[in-house]
Parts: sequence; C-alpha cells; structure tokens
Amino acid sequence: MNRNRLFQRRNFLLGAAASTTAAIAVNAVSRTEQPANAQSEQFRWRMVSRWDETFPDQLAAGQRLANRIAAMSQGRLTIEVLPPNAVVPFPETLKVVSDGTVEMSRSLAYDWRTQSPVLEFFFVVPYGFTQNEMSAWLYYFGGQELWDAAYAPFGVRAFPAGSLGAQSFGWFRNEINSLDDLRGVRFRTTGVAADVLSQLGVKPVTMRIPEIRQAMQAKKLDGFELVGPLVDLHYGLQELARYYYFPSYNQPSGLVELVVNRARYEALPSDLQQIIAIAAQAEHDQGLAEANAGNARALQRLTNDYKIQVRQLPVDVMKALGSASGEVIAEMRSRADDLMKRTIDSFLFTRQILMPWSQMTEQSFLTARSLPFTYARRS
Amino acid sequence: MNRNRLFQRRNFLLGAAASTTAAIAVNAVSRTEQPANAQSEQFRWRMVSRWDETFPDQLAAGQRLANRIAAMSQGRLTIEVLPPNAVVPFPETLKVVSDGTVEMSRSLAYDWRTQSPVLEFFFVVPYGFTQNEMSAWLYYFGGQELWDAAYAPFGVRAFPAGSLGAQSFGWFRNEINSLDDLRGVRFRTTGVAADVLSQLGVKPVTMRIPEIRQAMQAKKLDGFELVGPLVDLHYGLQELARYYYFPSYNQPSGLVELVVNRARYEALPSDLQQIIAIAAQAEHDQGLAEANAGNARALQRLTNDYKIQVRQLPVDVMKALGSASGEVIAEMRSRADDLMKRTIDSFLFTRQILMPWSQMTEQSFLTARSLPFTYARRS
Repeated sequence: MNRNRLFQRRNFLLGAAASTTAAIAVNAVSRTEQPANAQSEQFRWRMVSRWDETFPDQLAAGQRLANRIAAMSQGRLTIEVLPPNAVVPFPETLKVVSDGTVEMSRSLAYDWRTQSPVLEFFFVVPYGFTQNEMSAWLYYFGGQELWDAAYAPFGVRAFPAGSLGAQSFGWFRNEINSLDDLRGVRFRTTGVAADVLSQLGVKPVTMRIPEIRQAMQAKKLDGFELVGPLVDLHYGLQELARYYYFPSYNQPSGLVELVVNRARYEALPSDLQQIIAIAAQAEHDQGLAEANAGNARALQRLTNDYKIQVRQLPVDVMKALGSASGEVIAEMRSRADDLMKRTIDSFLFTRQILMPWSQMTEQSFLTARSLPFTYARRS
Repeated sequence: MNRNRLFQRRNFLLGAAASTTAAIAVNAVSRTEQPANAQSEQFRWRMVSRWDETFPDQLAAGQRLANRIAAMSQGRLTIEVLPPNAVVPFPETLKVVSDGTVEMSRSLAYDWRTQSPVLEFFFVVPYGFTQNEMSAWLYYFGGQELWDAAYAPFGVRAFPAGSLGAQSFGWFRNEINSLDDLRGVRFRTTGVAADVLSQLGVKPVTMRIPEIRQAMQAKKLDGFELVGPLVDLHYGLQELARYYYFPSYNQPSGLVELVVNRARYEALPSDLQQIIAIAAQAEHDQGLAEANAGNARALQRLTNDYKIQVRQLPVDVMKALGSASGEVIAEMRSRADDLMKRTIDSFLFTRQILMPWSQMTEQSFLTARSLPFTYARRS
C-alpha cells in the first residue's frame, strides 16, 4: 500500500471529511472480494499493558479493548494482554514493539520521551489541552500526522486509546493561600512538574509510595502528588494530608495510546486494521467517562467520609504556574529539532484557536452552572 | 437471546467492569464457531439522517459511520444513508424504525419528545451535562439502562453516536449588561429555552431563518439563536447582529443518537452487533472533536474578519437562568410517570456527584489557563 492510500485511510478513520467519503465507500465494497483465506486467517497478537493490577481500571481497559477487537473480528484477531514487565523491563517496550517481538503496547507517549522528546506533546504539556481539545488537535489540526512522524523512526504507529482523566495538583499538610505558602515546601512530584515547581520556590523530591508515607509521617515531606481521587483513595493517601488542591495545571487529562508495529498492522486485512483503529477510538471516549465517574465518586467519599478539604489553588499560584510553564515550553522550543519545532508550533497555533472557544463554552458553562441558584432536587 | 445476556453484552460494550471480562472472552471465542453462512450473509440496511445537506458535517458524519461499519464488516453490513424525509416526513421516523421499514436513524432523542417526554433527558436539559458528563451518566451511572427503558415500548435501542458540540446563547442587536436588558426583548428561540426565557421577561418568538433575516432587518426582532459559530457563519447570521453571547445554559453539548430496530439488531450475528455499537461510540468521540474544531475556527473568523463582539452573559442573567431552569425541571418531575421520575432522579443524583469533580478539574483548569500570564509563542 502506498503512502497516499495510507493517508487516505487514516483520514477516513480518524477525521474523514466529506470529500474522502466516496473513495472510501468504493474501498469498502472492493474489500468483500478479498480471497476467502484472507478472511479466515487467524492472528494471535500480544499487547504489553503499561498498568498492572495496582492500577486495575487501566489494566481492565486494555483487556476490554482486546475483547472488543476479538468480538468484532469473530476471533480472527485475538490479543493477549501482558503485564508491564512480561517480555522486557517496561521502559524497553517501545523497542520490542518496533522489532515486532510484541505487536502492541497500551501506554503513554510520555513513557518514551527519553528516546524522542517530542512524544511528550502527545501525552500532556503544562497548560496544554483538555482531552476534548487533544482530540480536536489530533483529528482536525494535523496532530495525528505529527504523531505519526514522531513514531515513524520506530516503525510503529499510534492511536488514541483511552484517558487518564484529570489529575490533582496535590496533597498538602497545610493550606496554600498564596505563592508565599509554596516557598520552601518539600513536595513529592515527577517529570516536568518538578522543573516548573522549582521556579516557584518549591523543593521537589522524587520518591515512591511507601517512602511518601514514611516521609509524611516523619514530617520530612510537606506534600505530594500521585494521580487523582480514585487512585489516591485506593492507596489511602487521604490519611497523610488534609488539604487536596486542584487543578492540575499540567494534567487536565492524559492521552492513553495504543502503539502498534507498523509492518504487522499494514499486513493485516484492511477490515482488521479498521477494527483496531475504531475500537481504540471508542476506548478514548470510554476511558474519559470511566475516569470521570470513578474520580467523581472518590472525590465525594474523600469529602464526605474523610472530611478532606478540597481547594482551588490561589490565583497568584495559578498565574505563576502559567508563566513558569510558558518558559518551559519556550525553552523546549529553543533547543528543538525540526519535527519538535513543527509540533510545538502546531500545538501553539491550535491552542490559540481552541482556547477562546473553550472559554466561551465549557469554561463559561461550568462557571454559570456553579453559581448559587436553586435547582431541582430529588424527593 | 434472553434479557440477561443482552444486558451482559451491553455492559461489555458500553461500560465493561473487570468482572464481566471473563464471560465476554469466552463469548468472543465461541463466536468463531458460528456456521459459515452466518459469516457470509449480507445485510443491506437503511439509515434516516436527521440532517440534510444544509448541515453538511452531521450528514457526512452519518455517512462516515456507515462507511466505518461497512469497512469493519468487509461489506457484510452496508447502510444506505437517506435524507430526512426520504421515507416519511422526518417527525414520523421513529415509527418507521419501530416497525422495521428502515433499520436505523441518526437523530436526537429530543426529536421524539412529543411521543415520550422522558427522551428529552437523553439529549440536553438546562444546566445539565457536558458531553463528557453525559457519557459518564450513560456508561457508569445507569443512564443507558434508563434510555433503553425509554425506548423499549418503541422496539428500538439507541447508542451515543455523535455530538452537536456546544451552542451559543444567541445573537443580540444590543449589549446585555444585566437582567434588565433582557426584559421585553423579542428573541427568536425554540423548545424549552422559550419557557425558561419567558420567566426572565424575554418575549420568545418562533421563526425560520429567512424570517429571522427579514425581522432583524425591519427591527421587529432584537435577537435570535440558531446553533453555534460554524452553522451560524454558514448562514451569514453575523450580518444581522453585532453581539454574540455565551454560554448556552441549556446546550453545552447535545447527544447525537443512533436508533436501531431492536429485532433486526438482535437478529444480526453478534460481531455485527458489536461493530455497530463500537463504531457509534467512536463517532461520539469524533463528533465532539469535529464540532470543537469547526466552531473554534468559525469563532476566530467571526471575531477577526467580522469584528463580532463575543461576550459572556452577565452573572445575574446566568443565575436567573439557573433558577428558571430548576423550576422547569422540578415542574417536569412533578407531573412525571414512574420512568420519568426515575430518570430525573438518576440525572439529579449523577449531576450532584459529577459537578464538584468538573468544578475542581475542567472548570478550574480552564479558568487557570485563561489567567493573564506569558506563554510560549510561535516565532
């Protein structure tokens, strides 16, 4: 299949404009004339899941994706879901999908940022996109093409296939009422957040969950962030701090990807290719709903049962995080190669167009709905 | 297939918990043993589209859904997309899907509210759900079961299959700076919005696009709402008024449904059943992204090229709309039958759980991101 055909198909799958419709309808019909053996050939694939049973929802989501593909293909394509370290240590997974040892991973583009820094943009960046905006970027503002270009050297392609949902800013022993209250605070975090928070005078610390527990109890740590209400409640983190701050300036969501060995993918009958892509896209919708439902229920438990104080960050902190995030992005751009520059520019261009729309609709609606007025109640 | 199996399958498709995974995996395998003729049988179905070529994106979305189903099924299930009035006048479409004259419609549950008022809750209600919240309700808080119950008397079932995206509050000749500015204003609108706005002293008027144009030019009308930037720009409505107000308190989104004749659906081989449901779910993700991308671009054109003044409604108006909306919902509940009561109570219960989560994440993030700070720029 030549590159042009491939792009046509991708446009069809993940952003068909009316103009491509006719060509595709023809494709669909010609597919029925494939030789019978292509239709009965069985494919047994394997998928490495980034998540093990300590993150049960995400592990189950990978299994659900595999089940859906098996069911839609009448078992012609079955996928065994493997735990993170089953084949190689998880950080080496992109290599084994590249070389075809396994066919797929369900992961985060962020996982491979040391191998290709541009991939960070296909997970989350500070003050970047909500999930809905990320979809708009990928499907309608060229984001998917840039993502494909980022993965081309690895011989894989990626599909949106789930969501981490929104995360929290973090847990604190004491209230944060201004920027001053963050200065000198010893705070457990990871990744780019550590760079941004350092600029605000926070002292970022890296540690694992058991260490967080010990350090909080010994008052050697003032706060920490892990994920969001559902996971944090699962680990009992509400026992360690009283104040829970939102929003996460850098994780309003988080794209979960399905990475697929490109040669294996292209060797599949075209109906199976489409089944994979469309099942993954349905998971993108399902995953956000699942994260929102689970987190909303957990947040209610934290406030009602554990009397946790849920707070919004003060305005001066949210602003300072904005400027610090802008500096981090600008710095990334200044040392960027061509693909990274094109990706950052596409991200910034799209952000500039989507922001006013999100402000006048989602933000403005949610603000209006939060005003004090009397609404209907259950009896 | 008994009712229990049916529910099991639906849970799998649209909200699988880990507990149902094992049962489904077995199902998927047993499906491969279906007789060969079941796998080669061809189905030629028809879908009535609510939208004709005057709403090109939604018409194309129906075609894209049909194309995806054809491609995933190797042409075993093809769907001819029909314009709204092709079989019967569009308002009678639910009847012809019920009796199997056509197999499907891509429509809004709102379209059939005179036949079953509860269906309004599966489109939008004032100060109800964003699209992401609607998905959470349907998949994880029992919304889909209530929707199925609402459609059971019609012998159909429905799947989320797209999105109208956010709409505007409307266009006004003059600025709206307080509740007083709305009193006596002659405003073109439809449906429940007319009831709510009447309570604020607005004089609602019903008319079609050519009449709107004439009435605005003759100053017999002070404002109007149609859809949102993309469609409004398509009709050149920016020529008729200067001020464009947001948010739409009652249409932060709008669920597009795929309604399917239940007997025909259940007579399909199970792989085709799943292909329909999962293709529809992928369209739910695709549709919101498409609406956001198109509307964001159109909003930019309206402000940059046409110098339209885009404004947020004053706080007192947003509050008054809240109380009036609450009264409308309470009134609906007071005269409700059992299913309507259960639906409204489920809606209110879910809203109460989802609201604090949306406030601390989506609302709080978008507010933070809108603060004045320096962010990175393209060179």
